[in-house]
Amino acid sequence: MSVIAELSLFPVDKGKSLSPYVARVIDVIRQSGLNFELGPMGTCIEGDWKDVIQVIDRCFEAMRSESERIYMTLKMDYSQGRQGGLNTKVDSVKNKLPKKE
Amino acid sequence: MSVIAELSLFPVDKGKSLSPYVARVIDVIRQSGLNFELGPMGTCIEGDWKDVIQVIDRCFEAMRSESERIYMTLKMDYSQGRQGGLNTKVDSVKNKLPKKE
Amino acid sequence: MSVIAELSLFPVDKGKSLSPYVARVIDVIRQSGLNFELGPMGTCIEGDWKDVIQVIDRCFEAMRSESERIYMTLKMDYSQGRQGGLNTKVDSVKNKLPKKE
Amino acid sequence: MSVIAELSLFPVDKGKSLSPYVARVIDVIRQSGLNFELGPMGTCIEGDWKDVIQVIDRCFEAMRSESERIYMTLKMDYSQGRQGGLNTKVDSVKNKLPKKE
Repeated sequence: MSVIAELSLFPVDKGKSLSPYVARVIDVIRQSGLNFELGPMGTCIEGDWKDVIQVIDRCFEAMRSESERIYMTLKMDYSQGRQGGLNTKVDSVKNKLPKKE
Repeated sequence: MSVIAELSLFPVDKGKSLSPYVARVIDVIRQSGLNFELGPMGTCIEGDWKDVIQVIDRCFEAMRSESERIYMTLKMDYSQGRQGGLNTKVDSVKNKLPKKE
Repeated sequence: MSVIAELSLFPVDKGKSLSPYVARVIDVIRQSGLNFELGPMGTCIEGDWKDVIQVIDRCFEAMRSESERIYMTLKMDYSQGRQGGLNTKVDSVKNKLPKKE
Repeated sequence: MSVIAELSLFPVDKGKSLSPYVARVIDVIRQSGLNFELGPMGTCIEGDWKDVIQVIDRCFEAMRSESERIYMTLKMDYSQGRQGGLNTKVDSVKNKLPKKE
């Protein structure tokens, strides 16, 4: 659970409407059973390193089967022994925000 | 409103506890009045290009005042004429997901 | 000179041949007079924060004039007082590589 | 050979001098036998998807053995059937640059 990876994966050769392709990637992530969270610019996946890499591999293979040019960005944050970071990271920042006046 | 930018900005010289620094950046974004959404790996900001660039400039200057080494990643998606993309992008993908059995 | 930013900027609505669009962005960077280095996955620009942000602004405006959907990734490394980092960063790593046998 | 991936991988818990850690990652890449190119903001690796993913896995495991918090960014460009993209991508852009006066 020590890894949170944010994946953005999309075809470059299909024009400007990307959501059908992104939906298929999300379906692959959903089937993995790992915790994940959809966001406006990518999908965060939480798990052990090997599990996260494996699901990214499956996402890429799914997209490769229908596209000739693909772009991917991945940001990964590893913190030894972290549990439930998908929620705790955001809460930890929120708790430190100055109170609104 | 045609730009959504996901900002990750953190000091590299302050050890592994980053949330106090991230909180100060979020406070700068909050004060801008732009729509934003906190995520586990970055903060998405929505607005016109000039407004988004201006708030990123302020975030960096705030962090520079207390850190000697800073790392930033920014992903930006521009779609001409898009409105409310912070919500519609995620909804558009969700609506295309195959139904769970 | 304390900032090195790696910029990748391309249209998503123009099909899979991207180099004509990238060339126009590089031309904007070249005209700025800042040090830069073309790479396979992005262009590194070195300068002071304000100068780097200004040239990225110009690059985006140039691309926006001919494309309706644009994707950008930016990675930025700030190190207070660094000079000539475009060369010294790579050299510093090379000097620490174990000798090949 | 159809994948070019740019890897940036560094510890967040070791202070601001990162090059010794980066050098160990480069050494792992070098031992893989894949084509690669060091840059100021990351290292580009060229190969087939499975080979590239495997070397990134080894890089991460090497860094994990000595660090408790690690940040990674990865950008990946897949182009079906591309050969030698590490050189041809940059040349293709250079050839389209307007001549300097």
